[in-house]
Amino acid sequence: MIEDKIKELGFELPEAPKPVAAYVPVLKVDNLIFTAGQIPFVKGELKYKGKLGKDLPAGQAGLTIDEGKKAAEVCALNCLAAVRTIIKDLDEIEHIVKLTVFVNCIDGFTNQPQVANGASELLEKIFGGKGKHARSAVGVSGLPLDAAVEIEMIVKVK
Amino acid sequence: MIEDKIKELGFELPEAPKPVAAYVPVLKVDNLIFTAGQIPFVKGELKYKGKLGKDLPAGQAGLTIDEGKKAAEVCALNCLAAVRTIIKDLDEIEHIVKLTVFVNCIDGFTNQPQVANGASELLEKIFGGKGKHARSAVGVSGLPLDAAVEIEMIVKVK
Amino acid sequence: MIEDKIKELGFELPEAPKPVAAYVPVLKVDNLIFTAGQIPFVKGELKYKGKLGKDLPAGQAGLTIDEGKKAAEVCALNCLAAVRTIIKDLDEIEHIVKLTVFVNCIDGFTNQPQVANGASELLEKIFGGKGKHARSAVGVSGLPLDAAVEIEMIVKVK
Repeated sequence: MIEDKIKELGFELPEAPKPVAAYVPVLKVDNLIFTAGQIPFVKGELKYKGKLGKDLPAGQAGLTIDEGKKAAEVCALNCLAAVRTIIKDLDEIEHIVKLTVFVNCIDGFTNQPQVANGASELLEKIFGGKGKHARSAVGVSGLPLDAAVEIEMIVKVK
Repeated sequence: MIEDKIKELGFELPEAPKPVAAYVPVLKVDNLIFTAGQIPFVKGELKYKGKLGKDLPAGQAGLTIDEGKKAAEVCALNCLAAVRTIIKDLDEIEHIVKLTVFVNCIDGFTNQPQVANGASELLEKIFGGKGKHARSAVGVSGLPLDAAVEIEMIVKVK
Repeated sequence: MIEDKIKELGFELPEAPKPVAAYVPVLKVDNLIFTAGQIPFVKGELKYKGKLGKDLPAGQAGLTIDEGKKAAEVCALNCLAAVRTIIKDLDEIEHIVKLTVFVNCIDGFTNQPQVANGASELLEKIFGGKGKHARSAVGVSGLPLDAAVEIEMIVKVK
Protein backbone atom coordinates (compact mmCIF):
# COMPACT_ATOMS: atom_id res chain seq x y z
CA MET A 1 0.00 0.00 0.00
CA ILE A 2 1.34 3.39 -1.02
CA GLU A 3 0.08 5.04 2.14
CA ASP A 4 2.04 2.55 4.29
CA LYS A 5 5.11 3.30 2.19
CA ILE A 6 4.76 7.00 3.00
CA LYS A 7 4.80 6.15 6.73
CA GLU A 8 7.79 3.80 6.33
CA LEU A 9 9.68 6.69 4.76
CA GLY A 10 9.01 8.73 7.89
CA PHE A 11 6.43 11.02 6.31
CA GLU A 12 2.76 11.47 6.92
CA LEU A 13 0.04 12.03 4.36
CA PRO A 14 -1.44 15.30 5.61
CA GLU A 15 -5.00 16.52 5.62
CA ALA A 16 -5.58 18.20 2.28
CA PRO A 17 -4.94 21.93 2.77
CA LYS A 18 -7.96 24.12 2.16
CA PRO A 19 -7.61 26.31 -0.91
CA VAL A 20 -6.62 29.85 0.08
CA ALA A 21 -9.16 31.27 -2.34
CA ALA A 22 -12.06 30.60 -4.70
CA TYR A 23 -11.08 27.31 -6.32
CA VAL A 24 -10.95 23.57 -5.65
CA PRO A 25 -7.87 21.63 -4.56
CA VAL A 26 -8.13 19.07 -7.31
CA LEU A 27 -10.08 18.37 -10.47
CA LYS A 28 -10.48 15.08 -12.31
CA VAL A 29 -11.10 14.90 -16.02
CA ASP A 30 -11.34 11.41 -17.50
CA ASN A 31 -8.44 9.61 -15.83
CA LEU A 32 -6.25 12.65 -15.25
CA ILE A 33 -6.26 14.59 -11.98
CA PHE A 34 -5.00 18.17 -11.93
CA THR A 35 -4.11 19.62 -8.53
CA ALA A 36 -4.24 23.27 -7.63
CA GLY A 37 -0.87 24.77 -6.81
CA GLN A 38 0.09 23.59 -3.33
CA ILE A 39 2.22 25.57 -0.90
CA PRO A 40 4.12 24.19 2.12
CA PHE A 41 1.34 24.20 4.70
CA VAL A 42 1.92 21.86 7.64
CA LYS A 43 -1.13 21.42 9.87
CA GLY A 44 -2.60 24.70 8.77
CA GLU A 45 0.58 26.72 9.19
CA LEU A 46 2.72 27.87 6.30
CA LYS A 47 6.04 26.32 7.35
CA TYR A 48 8.42 27.60 4.67
CA LYS A 49 8.15 31.28 3.85
CA GLY A 50 10.39 33.71 2.06
CA LYS A 51 12.81 33.59 -0.83
CA LEU A 52 15.44 31.06 -1.73
CA GLY A 53 18.92 32.48 -2.14
CA LYS A 54 20.44 32.55 1.34
CA ASP A 55 23.38 30.46 0.10
CA LEU A 56 24.20 32.83 -2.76
CA PRO A 57 27.32 35.00 -2.36
CA ALA A 58 25.02 38.00 -2.05
CA GLY A 59 22.57 35.92 -0.01
CA GLN A 60 20.02 37.79 2.05
CA ALA A 61 17.85 36.64 4.87
CA GLY A 62 15.90 33.82 3.27
CA LEU A 63 15.96 30.08 2.83
CA THR A 64 18.79 27.74 1.96
CA ILE A 65 18.56 25.10 -0.74
CA ASP A 66 18.11 22.45 1.94
CA GLU A 67 15.17 24.32 3.38
CA GLY A 68 13.79 24.75 -0.13
CA LYS A 69 14.02 20.98 -0.71
CA LYS A 70 12.07 20.36 2.48
CA ALA A 71 9.47 22.89 1.37
CA ALA A 72 9.16 21.04 -1.96
CA GLU A 73 8.67 17.72 -0.11
CA VAL A 74 5.81 19.24 1.84
CA CYS A 75 4.24 20.62 -1.34
CA ALA A 76 4.43 17.17 -2.94
CA LEU A 77 2.74 15.56 0.06
CA ASN A 78 0.06 18.25 -0.05
CA CYS A 79 -0.51 17.51 -3.74
CA LEU A 80 -0.97 13.82 -2.90
CA ALA A 81 -3.31 14.77 -0.05
CA ALA A 82 -5.35 16.84 -2.50
CA VAL A 83 -5.50 13.94 -4.98
CA ARG A 84 -6.44 11.57 -2.15
CA THR A 85 -9.63 13.54 -1.46
CA ILE A 86 -11.22 12.21 -4.64
CA ILE A 87 -9.86 8.66 -4.87
CA LYS A 88 -10.20 5.69 -2.53
CA ASP A 89 -6.49 5.42 -1.78
CA LEU A 90 -3.21 6.42 -3.39
CA ASP A 91 -2.82 2.96 -4.94
CA GLU A 92 -5.31 4.12 -7.54
CA ILE A 93 -2.56 6.34 -8.94
CA GLU A 94 -1.23 4.74 -12.10
CA HIS A 95 1.48 7.33 -12.71
CA ILE A 96 2.68 10.73 -11.59
CA VAL A 97 2.65 12.60 -14.91
CA LYS A 98 3.92 16.13 -14.44
CA LEU A 99 5.08 18.61 -11.81
CA THR A 100 5.45 22.34 -12.25
CA VAL A 101 7.62 23.73 -9.48
CA PHE A 102 7.58 27.48 -8.85
CA VAL A 103 10.44 28.59 -6.60
CA ASN A 104 10.17 31.97 -4.83
CA CYS A 105 13.73 33.27 -5.16
CA ILE A 106 15.97 36.28 -5.24
CA ASP A 107 17.23 37.51 -8.57
CA GLY A 108 20.18 35.44 -9.71
CA PHE A 109 19.15 32.18 -8.03
CA THR A 110 19.67 29.26 -10.41
CA ASN A 111 19.29 26.18 -8.22
CA GLN A 112 15.60 25.60 -8.90
CA PRO A 113 16.34 21.95 -9.89
CA GLN A 114 17.91 21.09 -6.53
CA VAL A 115 14.94 22.59 -4.72
CA ALA A 116 12.45 20.76 -6.94
CA ASN A 117 14.30 17.50 -6.30
CA GLY A 118 12.84 17.58 -2.80
CA ALA A 119 9.53 16.74 -4.45
CA SER A 120 10.79 14.53 -7.29
CA GLU A 121 13.00 12.30 -5.15
CA LEU A 122 10.27 11.79 -2.57
CA LEU A 123 7.76 10.81 -5.26
CA GLU A 124 10.16 8.28 -6.67
CA LYS A 125 10.78 6.81 -3.20
CA ILE A 126 7.05 6.53 -2.63
CA PHE A 127 5.91 5.28 -6.02
CA GLY A 128 9.04 3.73 -7.57
CA GLY A 129 8.91 3.78 -11.37
CA LYS A 130 5.33 5.07 -11.29
CA GLY A 131 6.61 8.16 -9.51
CA LYS A 132 8.93 9.27 -12.33
CA HIS A 133 7.46 12.34 -13.95
CA ALA A 134 8.14 15.16 -16.38
CA ARG A 135 8.90 18.42 -14.62
CA SER A 136 9.50 22.11 -15.05
CA ALA A 137 11.17 24.19 -12.36
CA VAL A 138 11.30 27.98 -12.58
CA GLY A 139 12.09 30.90 -10.32
CA VAL A 140 9.37 33.44 -9.62
CA SER A 141 9.31 36.84 -8.01
CA GLY A 142 6.55 36.13 -5.52
CA LEU A 143 4.17 33.41 -4.32
CA PRO A 144 0.90 33.38 -2.36
CA LEU A 145 1.37 34.24 1.35
CA ASP A 146 5.11 34.48 0.67
CA ALA A 147 5.40 30.69 0.33
CA ALA A 148 8.90 29.49 -0.58
CA VAL A 149 7.68 26.96 -3.15
CA GLU A 150 4.44 26.20 -5.00
CA ILE A 151 3.91 22.90 -6.83
CA GLU A 152 1.10 21.70 -9.09
CA MET A 153 0.80 18.07 -10.14
CA ILE A 154 -0.92 16.04 -12.83
CA VAL A 155 -1.48 12.36 -12.08
CA LYS A 156 -3.06 9.54 -14.02
CA VAL A 157 -5.37 7.23 -12.13
CA LYS A 158 -6.63 3.76 -13.06
CA MET B 1 -27.74 29.71 -21.73
CA ILE B 2 -24.31 30.52 -20.39
CA GLU B 3 -23.94 33.47 -22.71
CA ASP B 4 -27.14 35.03 -21.34
CA LYS B 5 -25.83 34.49 -17.83
CA ILE B 6 -22.69 36.46 -18.70
CA LYS B 7 -24.88 39.39 -19.78
CA GLU B 8 -27.06 39.13 -16.65
CA LEU B 9 -23.90 39.46 -14.58
CA GLY B 10 -23.17 42.72 -16.37
CA PHE B 11 -20.33 41.38 -18.49
CA GLU B 12 -19.92 40.89 -22.18
CA LEU B 13 -18.28 38.00 -23.97
CA PRO B 14 -15.66 39.83 -26.01
CA GLU B 15 -14.34 39.14 -29.46
CA ALA B 16 -11.49 36.69 -29.08
CA PRO B 17 -8.26 38.71 -28.91
CA LYS B 18 -5.85 38.02 -31.71
CA PRO B 19 -2.68 36.27 -30.57
CA VAL B 20 0.16 38.78 -30.24
CA ALA B 21 2.52 36.38 -31.97
CA ALA B 22 2.94 33.13 -33.88
CA TYR B 23 0.47 30.82 -32.21
CA VAL B 24 -3.24 30.06 -32.00
CA PRO B 25 -5.62 31.28 -29.30
CA VAL B 26 -6.94 27.85 -28.49
CA LEU B 27 -6.27 24.21 -29.27
CA LYS B 28 -8.60 21.25 -28.82
CA VAL B 29 -7.33 17.75 -28.22
CA ASP B 30 -9.97 15.08 -27.72
CA ASN B 31 -12.43 16.80 -25.37
CA LEU B 32 -9.96 19.15 -23.71
CA ILE B 33 -9.41 22.70 -24.90
CA PHE B 34 -6.18 24.50 -23.99
CA THR B 35 -6.17 28.28 -24.34
CA ALA B 36 -3.15 30.39 -25.02
CA GLY B 37 -2.25 32.76 -22.21
CA GLN B 38 -4.71 35.66 -22.32
CA ILE B 39 -3.92 39.19 -21.23
CA PRO B 40 -6.43 41.92 -20.31
CA PHE B 41 -7.25 43.27 -23.75
CA VAL B 42 -10.56 45.13 -23.98
CA LYS B 43 -11.64 45.92 -27.55
CA GLY B 44 -8.10 45.72 -28.82
CA GLU B 45 -6.56 47.86 -26.10
CA LEU B 46 -4.54 46.47 -23.22
CA LYS B 47 -6.55 47.88 -20.32
CA TYR B 48 -4.50 46.79 -17.31
CA LYS B 49 -0.77 47.39 -17.56
CA GLY B 50 2.03 47.44 -15.04
CA LYS B 51 2.89 45.67 -11.85
CA LEU B 52 0.74 44.79 -8.89
CA GLY B 53 2.03 46.09 -5.57
CA LYS B 54 0.69 49.62 -5.25
CA ASP B 55 -0.94 48.74 -1.94
CA LEU B 56 2.29 47.42 -0.42
CA PRO B 57 3.98 49.59 2.23
CA ALA B 58 6.76 50.24 -0.27
CA GLY B 59 4.21 50.41 -3.09
CA GLN B 60 5.28 52.08 -6.29
CA ALA B 61 3.27 53.39 -9.16
CA GLY B 62 1.37 50.32 -10.26
CA LEU B 63 -1.92 48.55 -9.78
CA THR B 64 -3.90 47.83 -6.64
CA ILE B 65 -5.30 44.43 -5.80
CA ASP B 66 -8.75 45.62 -6.88
CA GLU B 67 -7.41 46.62 -10.26
CA GLY B 68 -5.60 43.28 -10.48
CA LYS B 69 -8.88 41.45 -9.79
CA LYS B 70 -10.55 43.37 -12.60
CA ALA B 71 -7.65 42.50 -14.91
CA ALA B 72 -8.09 38.83 -13.99
CA GLU B 73 -11.82 39.04 -14.80
CA VAL B 74 -11.00 40.37 -18.25
CA CYS B 75 -8.44 37.62 -18.82
CA ALA B 76 -11.02 34.98 -17.86
CA LEU B 77 -13.56 36.45 -20.30
CA ASN B 78 -10.89 36.49 -23.00
CA CYS B 79 -10.13 32.82 -22.30
CA LEU B 80 -13.84 32.04 -22.73
CA ALA B 81 -13.91 34.10 -25.93
CA ALA B 82 -10.97 32.09 -27.23
CA VAL B 83 -12.70 28.80 -26.36
CA ARG B 84 -15.90 30.07 -27.98
CA THR B 85 -14.17 30.39 -31.35
CA ILE B 86 -14.11 26.60 -31.75
CA ILE B 87 -17.36 25.52 -30.13
CA LYS B 88 -20.98 26.34 -30.97
CA ASP B 89 -21.73 28.08 -27.69
CA LEU B 90 -20.36 28.11 -24.15
CA ASP B 91 -23.00 25.59 -23.03
CA GLU B 92 -20.79 22.96 -24.63
CA ILE B 93 -18.37 23.46 -21.76
CA GLU B 94 -18.72 20.54 -19.39
CA HIS B 95 -16.25 21.86 -16.81
CA ILE B 96 -13.61 24.49 -16.28
CA VAL B 97 -10.62 22.29 -15.41
CA LYS B 98 -7.63 24.43 -14.60
CA LEU B 99 -6.38 28.02 -14.53
CA THR B 100 -2.80 29.16 -14.33
CA VAL B 101 -2.67 32.79 -13.26
CA PHE B 102 0.55 34.72 -13.78
CA VAL B 103 0.58 38.02 -11.88
CA ASN B 104 3.05 40.74 -12.94
CA CYS B 105 4.17 42.08 -9.57
CA ILE B 106 6.86 43.85 -7.66
CA ASP B 107 9.17 41.84 -5.48
CA GLY B 108 7.54 41.04 -2.17
CA PHE B 109 3.96 40.95 -3.45
CA THR B 110 2.13 37.96 -1.98
CA ASN B 111 -1.52 38.58 -2.81
CA GLN B 112 -1.61 36.58 -6.03
CA PRO B 113 -4.64 34.58 -4.75
CA GLN B 114 -6.79 37.68 -4.26
CA VAL B 115 -5.93 38.86 -7.76
CA ALA B 116 -6.64 35.45 -9.27
CA ASN B 117 -10.00 35.38 -7.48
CA GLY B 118 -11.17 37.96 -10.00
CA ALA B 119 -11.15 35.15 -12.53
CA SER B 120 -12.18 32.27 -10.28
CA GLU B 121 -15.17 34.01 -8.71
CA LEU B 122 -16.46 35.19 -12.06
CA LEU B 123 -16.21 31.66 -13.51
CA GLU B 124 -18.15 30.26 -10.60
CA LYS B 125 -20.84 32.94 -11.02
CA ILE B 126 -21.12 32.12 -14.72
CA PHE B 127 -20.92 28.33 -14.61
CA GLY B 128 -21.94 27.42 -11.05
CA GLY B 129 -20.46 24.10 -9.95
CA LYS B 130 -19.09 23.48 -13.45
CA GLY B 131 -16.99 26.60 -13.05
CA LYS B 132 -15.04 25.32 -10.03
CA HIS B 133 -11.49 24.59 -11.13
CA ALA B 134 -8.01 23.75 -9.92
CA ARG B 135 -5.70 26.74 -10.01
CA SER B 136 -2.16 27.94 -9.58
CA ALA B 137 -1.35 31.61 -9.03
CA VAL B 138 2.23 32.87 -9.11
CA GLY B 139 4.04 36.19 -9.29
CA VAL B 140 6.25 36.87 -12.29
CA SER B 141 8.79 39.54 -13.10
CA GLY B 142 7.34 40.52 -16.46
CA LEU B 143 4.51 39.79 -18.89
CA PRO B 144 3.93 40.43 -22.60
CA LEU B 145 3.29 44.12 -23.41
CA ASP B 146 3.57 44.81 -19.66
CA ALA B 147 0.18 43.20 -19.01
CA ALA B 148 -0.78 43.09 -15.33
CA VAL B 149 -2.07 39.52 -15.46
CA GLU B 150 -1.91 36.58 -17.87
CA ILE B 151 -4.23 33.58 -17.56
CA GLU B 152 -4.34 30.26 -19.37
CA MET B 153 -7.27 27.89 -19.06
CA ILE B 154 -8.03 24.24 -19.68
CA VAL B 155 -11.69 23.33 -20.19
CA LYS B 156 -13.48 20.08 -20.84
CA VAL B 157 -16.20 20.10 -23.47
CA LYS B 158 -18.97 17.61 -24.12
CA MET C 1 9.44 12.94 -43.20
CA ILE C 2 9.48 15.52 -40.45
CA GLU C 3 13.08 14.72 -39.56
CA ASP C 4 14.17 15.46 -43.15
CA LYS C 5 12.28 18.73 -42.99
CA ILE C 6 14.24 19.74 -39.89
CA LYS C 7 17.48 19.18 -41.83
CA GLU C 8 16.20 21.09 -44.87
CA LEU C 9 15.53 24.04 -42.58
CA GLY C 10 19.18 23.95 -41.55
CA PHE C 11 18.59 22.54 -38.08
CA GLU C 12 19.51 19.27 -36.49
CA LEU C 13 17.42 17.16 -34.17
CA PRO C 14 19.73 16.92 -31.17
CA GLU C 15 20.32 14.08 -28.77
CA ALA C 16 17.76 14.43 -26.02
CA PRO C 17 19.38 16.38 -23.17
CA LYS C 18 19.68 14.45 -19.93
CA PRO C 19 17.46 15.83 -17.18
CA VAL C 20 19.49 17.97 -14.79
CA ALA C 21 17.79 16.34 -11.82
CA ALA C 22 15.49 13.58 -10.57
CA TYR C 23 12.87 13.38 -13.27
CA VAL C 24 12.29 12.06 -16.79
CA PRO C 25 12.50 14.11 -19.99
CA VAL C 26 9.11 13.10 -21.25
CA LEU C 27 6.01 11.27 -20.11
CA LYS C 28 3.23 9.80 -22.22
CA VAL C 29 -0.30 9.42 -20.95
CA ASP C 30 -2.79 8.00 -23.42
CA ASN C 31 -1.97 9.89 -26.61
CA LEU C 32 -0.57 13.02 -24.98
CA ILE C 33 3.14 13.49 -24.34
CA PHE C 34 4.28 16.00 -21.72
CA THR C 35 7.90 17.11 -21.88
CA ALA C 36 9.95 18.30 -18.95
CA GLY C 37 11.03 21.91 -19.18
CA GLN C 38 13.88 22.11 -21.69
CA ILE C 39 16.69 24.64 -21.54
CA PRO C 40 19.00 25.65 -24.42
CA PHE C 41 21.59 22.89 -24.19
CA VAL C 42 23.58 22.32 -27.39
CA LYS C 43 25.72 19.18 -27.34
CA GLY C 44 25.82 19.13 -23.56
CA GLU C 45 26.69 22.80 -23.15
CA LEU C 46 24.20 25.43 -22.04
CA LYS C 47 24.52 27.83 -24.96
CA TYR C 48 22.26 30.71 -23.91
CA LYS C 49 22.70 31.91 -20.35
CA GLY C 50 21.65 35.03 -18.51
CA LYS C 51 18.75 37.42 -18.59
CA LEU C 52 16.94 38.98 -21.50
CA GLY C 53 16.81 42.75 -21.45
CA LYS C 54 20.03 43.93 -23.08
CA ASP C 55 18.02 45.94 -25.64
CA LEU C 56 16.06 47.81 -22.97
CA PRO C 57 16.93 51.49 -22.39
CA ALA C 58 18.33 50.46 -19.01
CA GLY C 59 19.75 47.28 -20.54
CA GLN C 60 22.41 45.45 -18.60
CA ALA C 61 24.82 42.80 -19.67
CA GLY C 62 22.52 40.07 -20.89
CA LEU C 63 20.89 38.75 -24.02
CA THR C 64 19.16 40.56 -26.84
CA ILE C 65 15.76 39.55 -28.17
CA ASP C 66 17.48 37.93 -31.17
CA GLU C 67 19.60 35.80 -28.90
CA GLY C 68 16.50 34.97 -26.88
CA LYS C 69 14.72 33.81 -30.05
CA LYS C 70 17.64 31.54 -30.88
CA ALA C 71 17.56 30.17 -27.34
CA ALA C 72 13.84 29.43 -27.77
CA GLU C 73 14.55 27.60 -31.06
CA VAL C 74 17.03 25.37 -29.29
CA CYS C 75 14.56 24.68 -26.48
CA ALA C 76 11.91 23.68 -29.03
CA LEU C 77 14.34 21.29 -30.75
CA ASN C 78 15.24 19.83 -27.37
CA CYS C 79 11.55 19.31 -26.62
CA LEU C 80 11.19 17.43 -29.92
CA ALA C 81 14.31 15.41 -29.11
CA ALA C 82 12.79 14.47 -25.77
CA VAL C 83 9.52 13.44 -27.44
CA ARG C 84 11.48 11.46 -30.03
CA THR C 85 12.95 9.20 -27.34
CA ILE C 86 9.60 7.48 -26.87
CA ILE C 87 8.16 7.43 -30.39
CA LYS C 88 9.45 5.83 -33.60
CA ASP C 89 9.85 9.08 -35.48
CA LEU C 90 8.47 12.61 -35.34
CA ASP C 91 5.86 11.79 -38.01
CA GLU C 92 3.92 10.12 -35.21
CA ILE C 93 3.15 13.59 -33.87
CA GLU C 94 -0.43 14.46 -34.75
CA HIS C 95 -0.32 17.98 -33.35
CA ILE C 96 1.77 20.28 -31.21
CA VAL C 97 -0.76 21.19 -28.50
CA LYS C 98 0.74 23.67 -26.08
CA LEU C 99 3.97 25.47 -25.19
CA THR C 100 4.75 27.24 -21.95
CA VAL C 101 7.69 29.56 -22.46
CA PHE C 102 9.50 30.89 -19.38
CA VAL C 103 11.83 33.79 -20.22
CA ASN C 104 14.60 34.68 -17.73
CA CYS C 105 14.51 38.46 -17.84
CA ILE C 106 15.28 41.66 -16.05
CA ASP C 107 12.47 43.55 -14.40
CA GLY C 108 10.55 45.59 -16.96
CA PHE C 109 11.14 43.29 -19.93
CA THR C 110 7.93 42.86 -21.90
CA ASN C 111 9.03 41.18 -25.13
CA GLN C 112 8.40 37.61 -24.04
CA PRO C 113 6.24 36.99 -27.15
CA GLN C 114 9.04 37.87 -29.57
CA VAL C 115 11.41 35.56 -27.73
CA ALA C 116 8.87 32.75 -27.67
CA ASN C 117 8.31 33.18 -31.40
CA GLY C 118 11.71 31.60 -31.90
CA ALA C 119 10.08 28.33 -30.86
CA SER C 120 6.61 28.89 -32.34
CA GLU C 121 7.79 29.94 -35.79
CA LEU C 122 10.21 27.03 -36.02
CA LEU C 123 7.50 24.54 -35.08
CA GLU C 124 5.21 25.92 -37.73
CA LYS C 125 7.99 25.68 -40.34
CA ILE C 126 8.65 22.08 -39.36
CA PHE C 127 5.11 20.80 -38.94
CA GLY C 128 2.97 23.23 -40.96
CA GLY C 129 -0.60 23.42 -39.66
CA LYS C 130 0.09 20.58 -37.21
CA GLY C 131 2.69 22.79 -35.59
CA LYS C 132 0.26 25.57 -34.60
CA HIS C 133 -0.19 25.49 -30.85
CA ALA C 134 -1.62 27.36 -27.89
CA ARG C 135 1.04 29.13 -25.91
CA SER C 136 1.79 31.11 -22.78
CA ALA C 137 4.93 33.22 -22.47
CA VAL C 138 5.93 34.79 -19.15
CA GLY C 139 8.97 36.46 -17.63
CA VAL C 140 10.60 34.82 -14.63
CA SER C 141 13.24 35.94 -12.16
CA GLY C 142 15.49 32.93 -12.53
CA LEU C 143 15.88 29.63 -14.38
CA PRO C 144 17.91 26.45 -13.80
CA LEU C 145 21.65 26.93 -14.41
CA ASP C 146 20.88 30.54 -15.39
CA ALA C 147 19.32 29.40 -18.70
CA ALA C 148 17.88 32.25 -20.76
CA VAL C 149 14.70 30.36 -21.67
CA GLU C 150 12.89 27.22 -20.53
CA ILE C 151 10.13 25.62 -22.60
CA GLU C 152 7.77 22.77 -21.87
CA MET C 153 5.62 21.19 -24.57
CA ILE C 154 2.52 19.04 -24.82
CA VAL C 155 2.07 17.08 -28.05
CA LYS C 156 -0.59 14.71 -29.29
CA VAL C 157 0.58 11.56 -31.01
CA LYS C 158 -1.33 9.15 -33.23
